[in-house]
Amino acid sequence: MALLSVAEALARVTRGLKPLEVERVALESANGRVLAEDVAARLTQPPFDASAMDGYAVRAADVTAVPVTLLVVGRSAAGAGFRGRVGPGEAVRIFTGAPVPEGADLIVIQENAEDEKASVTIKEAAGEPHIRLRGQDFTEGEILLTAGTRLGPREMMLAAAMNQADLPVRRKPKVAILATGNEVVPPGSELEADQIISSVPYGLAALIARHGGEAMALGIAKDEPESIITLARAGSAADILVTIGGASVGEYDLVAAALKSEGLALDFWKIAMRPGKPLLFGWMGNQRVLGVPGNPVSALICAHVFLIPMLDKLLGLTEQLHSEPEAVLGEALGANGPREHYMRALSAWRQDGMRVVTPLPSQDSSLVAALARADCLIVRPPNAPALPRGARVRIVPLDRG
Amino acid sequence: MALLSVAEALARVTRGLKPLEVERVALESANGRVLAEDVAARLTQPPFDASAMDGYAVRAADVTAVPVTLLVVGRSAAGAGFRGRVGPGEAVRIFTGAPVPEGADLIVIQENAEDEKASVTIKEAAGEPHIRLRGQDFTEGEILLTAGTRLGPREMMLAAAMNQADLPVRRKPKVAILATGNEVVPPGSELEADQIISSVPYGLAALIARHGGEAMALGIAKDEPESIITLARAGSAADILVTIGGASVGEYDLVAAALKSEGLALDFWKIAMRPGKPLLFGWMGNQRVLGVPGNPVSALICAHVFLIPMLDKLLGLTEQLHSEPEAVLGEALGANGPREHYMRALSAWRQDGMRVVTPLPSQDSSLVAALARADCLIVRPPNAPALPRGARVRIVPLDRG
Repeated sequence: MALLSVAEALARVTRGLKPLEVERVALESANGRVLAEDVAARLTQPPFDASAMDGYAVRAADVTAVPVTLLVVGRSAAGAGFRGRVGPGEAVRIFTGAPVPEGADLIVIQENAEDEKASVTIKEAAGEPHIRLRGQDFTEGEILLTAGTRLGPREMMLAAAMNQADLPVRRKPKVAILATGNEVVPPGSELEADQIISSVPYGLAALIARHGGEAMALGIAKDEPESIITLARAGSAADILVTIGGASVGEYDLVAAALKSEGLALDFWKIAMRPGKPLLFGWMGNQRVLGVPGNPVSALICAHVFLIPMLDKLLGLTEQLHSEPEAVLGEALGANGPREHYMRALSAWRQDGMRVVTPLPSQDSSLVAALARADCLIVRPPNAPALPRGARVRIVPLDRG
Repeated sequence: MALLSVAEALARVTRGLKPLEVERVALESANGRVLAEDVAARLTQPPFDASAMDGYAVRAADVTAVPVTLLVVGRSAAGAGFRGRVGPGEAVRIFTGAPVPEGADLIVIQENAEDEKASVTIKEAAGEPHIRLRGQDFTEGEILLTAGTRLGPREMMLAAAMNQADLPVRRKPKVAILATGNEVVPPGSELEADQIISSVPYGLAALIARHGGEAMALGIAKDEPESIITLARAGSAADILVTIGGASVGEYDLVAAALKSEGLALDFWKIAMRPGKPLLFGWMGNQRVLGVPGNPVSALICAHVFLIPMLDKLLGLTEQLHSEPEAVLGEALGANGPREHYMRALSAWRQDGMRVVTPLPSQDSSLVAALARADCLIVRPPNAPALPRGARVRIVPLDRG
């Protein structure tokens, strides 16, 4: 089978993926979720002309010549506005956020006024009116949050300010994780000879949670069709089934065969990518199946390249997070081979703000500790020429903890 | 009272904050938590010299001249190694990740071999040995994850690979959030005249969760000491009490007075910062009290500047997340006044990778929708001179959803 390019594989893997159902959640629970619909303000903000300062609401015409003494006819506090009107020669004591009473068109800040119980002497009244006009922030019916936005602290605060007590969000994509291998045992095991620890599910679960999905750990299947099928069935409610290992051409690679008996329509399984050559993709009914290599480094890089875009599509995410697509090389790189290479690299920032990236000394895909140390991947296209120090390269920033 | 500088306020707010207690959590639950102790590998990885390819394990001396036919004396698979020894003229069928049998020092990849049942003909054997040496990734007892690291997908995977089933992490800092104001009502309310929506708690809770804390919403206190005291007591178990509003010098600012009767030792309450001038800080027993302005934009910016560093200290976070401290101005800026100004700004990335930041047209601190649209804050020191387009400025990137 000819090797598929990463771009073509990505197109196939995400093809036809539609945003999941809409569910309404209480605002308190919406943090990190992705909006499924545009959301409009349920009020105008400020709902009235409001004072921007503590001071006195006056008629500008009364304070053109200072000092001048005005009669204090009332007070306007946040939550308790003055219902009357400010007439000529009159002032109303006012506080930040309080409604500006009718008749007044200027706030004299309290530092420029002298309080005399029933009256106030204005000493200075120059400068801005210190009034926040009605609707200056937003108006009722205005769409301020759009479908496809992931809700963070500021969007949450804005949604509250818009008087929304609950929000329409996408259901979280469910991703079932199925490890395979007779030799694979969970962390904390007393290891027998030849056994290896299952580590990929923990990295994947964290990555899935980070990107808005819900991970379901199915456990570790033996290298037998029955075991694989039993666990896969336990994950049948998931939108995506990720299998780990058992997807290459060796004799111990049983995942594709086992899932085919469950109705898997296999799409491809070899891509021009390093690390990560063996990659399985297919459909089982509505469920997408993504088979990543058993090698932890390859598995997590494949998840970055293929699984996150799948999640983004299921979430209907439209926001383009800036991914710092370019950086400059801290050292020269040799020519690349026929497979797109995702090199583990470390960044430093130059004084002028540029990100300088240097590949880790060893790019062996078995080095899990090195992957944890890296902070980005340098993407080298197939057959890319050698590059000098200082050349620009595309990078994939890696999630920090 | 003289205005305190932001730097001095930050020093006071974080002074004496020590990392919280250690708790052990199951690996599954450790994502996003901060390590409280260094963690060492419980095994050597790879635990044995392992094949990096599918093929045949041979003695290099036997394949210096090819083609050569060798006797296949066994097989070594991941999880089922070959217990014997490869003698002269012999080969062992081997798979990726499987132990390299004694005697062998070279893996011939299967593409270069021809299988003949009991024997194999090696057609080519040049190049690398395709053996991953024992301990190439890490060795038992090696510290690979250090105290103060926040655990993300790659750290989680590495911890699993180190055979750690649970991890020592810091307890999550508890932050109680107390809104105040007679006029303040929760989102979803039918608004009466003069009422305003409580929005800050939702932004703060999301920010706190994002930065590893646990938010407790105490509700909205009336502008009466009893109401403030009752709610504050409900949050007495929190490490930090954040109050919203009621911290400035106006008559309706009762928080400091109310909490003083509860034993609050007040530290300061006015800082040279824009937005965010009134800021209350103090101690109630072991609890820190941070009073942010009622204005939502000011409140969230104060939380970025003061609350996140407090959380970082309580978590013992040592990792310096790169915060892109510098960017270039997309337009000229006027001179700054006496208060440090945190200007809401939007970024664009130049083709050469530089981040170009442009302040939003209005910097009025009442604009919640504008804050949600911004992606960073430009920091203008007190009395900073005017700057031309293209000048370098320090920024605070804002969390995205």
